[in-house]
Amino acid sequence: MPTTRIALVCPGGRITPDLAAQTGEIAAARFGAAVSLTFHPQCFLSAGHFAGTDAQRSAAFLEVANDPAYDAVWFARGGYGACRLDEALFARLNDAARGKIYLGYSDAGFLLARLYRLGIGRPVHGPMPSDLTRAGGAEAVARALDYLAGGAARTLDPSLAEPPAPRRNTVAFNMTVLACLLGTDWAPDLSGHAVMLEEVSEYLYAVDRTMFAIAQDGNFRKAAGVMLGRVGDVPENDRPFGETAEEIAMRWCAQAGVPFLGRADIGHDADNKIVPFGAPVSEPRP
Amino acid sequence: MPTTRIALVCPGGRITPDLAAQTGEIAAARFGAAVSLTFHPQCFLSAGHFAGTDAQRSAAFLEVANDPAYDAVWFARGGYGACRLDEALFARLNDAARGKIYLGYSDAGFLLARLYRLGIGRPVHGPMPSDLTRAGGAEAVARALDYLAGGAARTLDPSLAEPPAPRRNTVAFNMTVLACLLGTDWAPDLSGHAVMLEEVSEYLYAVDRTMFAIAQDGNFRKAAGVMLGRVGDVPENDRPFGETAEEIAMRWCAQAGVPFLGRADIGHDADNKIVPFGAPVSEPRP
Repeated sequence: MPTTRIALVCPGGRITPDLAAQTGEIAAARFGAAVSLTFHPQCFLSAGHFAGTDAQRSAAFLEVANDPAYDAVWFARGGYGACRLDEALFARLNDAARGKIYLGYSDAGFLLARLYRLGIGRPVHGPMPSDLTRAGGAEAVARALDYLAGGAARTLDPSLAEPPAPRRNTVAFNMTVLACLLGTDWAPDLSGHAVMLEEVSEYLYAVDRTMFAIAQDGNFRKAAGVMLGRVGDVPENDRPFGETAEEIAMRWCAQAGVPFLGRADIGHDADNKIVPFGAPVSEPRP
Repeated sequence: MPTTRIALVCPGGRITPDLAAQTGEIAAARFGAAVSLTFHPQCFLSAGHFAGTDAQRSAAFLEVANDPAYDAVWFARGGYGACRLDEALFARLNDAARGKIYLGYSDAGFLLARLYRLGIGRPVHGPMPSDLTRAGGAEAVARALDYLAGGAARTLDPSLAEPPAPRRNTVAFNMTVLACLLGTDWAPDLSGHAVMLEEVSEYLYAVDRTMFAIAQDGNFRKAAGVMLGRVGDVPENDRPFGETAEEIAMRWCAQAGVPFLGRADIGHDADNKIVPFGAPVSEPRP
């Protein structure tokens, strides 16, 4: 089995060397020499909220994406910042960048979206090393490694893994991230796609407001449907909202004329499954 | 002096009868019979998060807007819900609705935006009865009443009140509300407008992300400039963001090619000033 060579960068918040070491230990125990992880030094930089300045994060991402020594770019953490990368970098991505997997979620969804819009590589929603700070995080990180090392079908969201896999394209986003990028140069064409959505740590009224914004978008209205992931860690408000997250999603889908297709097994949690963007995963990788 | 007849409705959250009574006492002490307040019974309904169902809130707003017995519609509270009103109501607004002032802010900004887009009445950003729950709220409510009763110049944002008033159109929005409504049927044409923005109770990273979304919008990019109100009650994050709210706004304005015009005296606080949408206030009211 050839070694899967994975480069890690942080387009948003930084990680600690200790978290990188824990991730490396999980990979070594699981795959030995069959997986190599390279944490770009940018992961450990600090500039206010971010893992280095916008220019430093942009340069690190461009460097590893364009380097033929890596098979995959794994975003080590979300935490906000991906949408601040230098937009000029996307025109500089090369053939090596086009052959890679890009794995992450939450704020990293900005990058997955932009790459998918541009048809560069295989953007994939899935766990990140920063999930090690959650209960059950080691299992999530192992799932991501299993996917990167071999595309293991059992890592996938069940709607993708169980035969017959749906013959539609799929994307997965944090609701707030999707609402922010719709209508911008970061938005992929959602026509005919199943759009999986998850959210975390937002009041249900804010979830409703975000779904309002998504539901009014003309691009979103061309989607094949919505699959709702988990809406987790909802803060308690001074009054109950009166609807569940699923009822909220179903109502706005109806308003937008987009079918509600049921639930997806994704979210900001240890069970967060893998969702390769685009064609069903039985089709060839880029 | 003729009586100024003000109808109050709640397009989002409900208010208590006690808060309505307090508002009435302030109005009576200040203006006696020169101001009459009519709280629509819908203000006190409860349906989950909202002051009644979407249909009930829509019907109450339409009723008071279309009623020639009122000179102004004062939104009694924000709190989320205005964007869920029945969109069909806007086609049913009559000539009486076109002659009114509509006063509120925060979530009520959805309605101010929609009315301004449609050229209906004079939408105005300013305090609401629900501000009585804040420190100094009585002063804010008195300011709103002073404006409604007579358009007192000292109630206005200083950029509008001090001669020479700028000869440009102005709007004022909560950042999150504006980000949600841009690109939708609720967005007014921002061409040539000074856009005042305020925010409350959001992490600075979320403020930055919201400004990203606003800055990418083609309609926003036609604005004459941004004036930043207060970004209040920012929660403390696990690390400092590294920029102030003003630096955030200036950076995204530069990215969007929209001039940053300085500060505005608005926000979710007792000092929140009045901002009539549209032409400078020395021009005739509708």
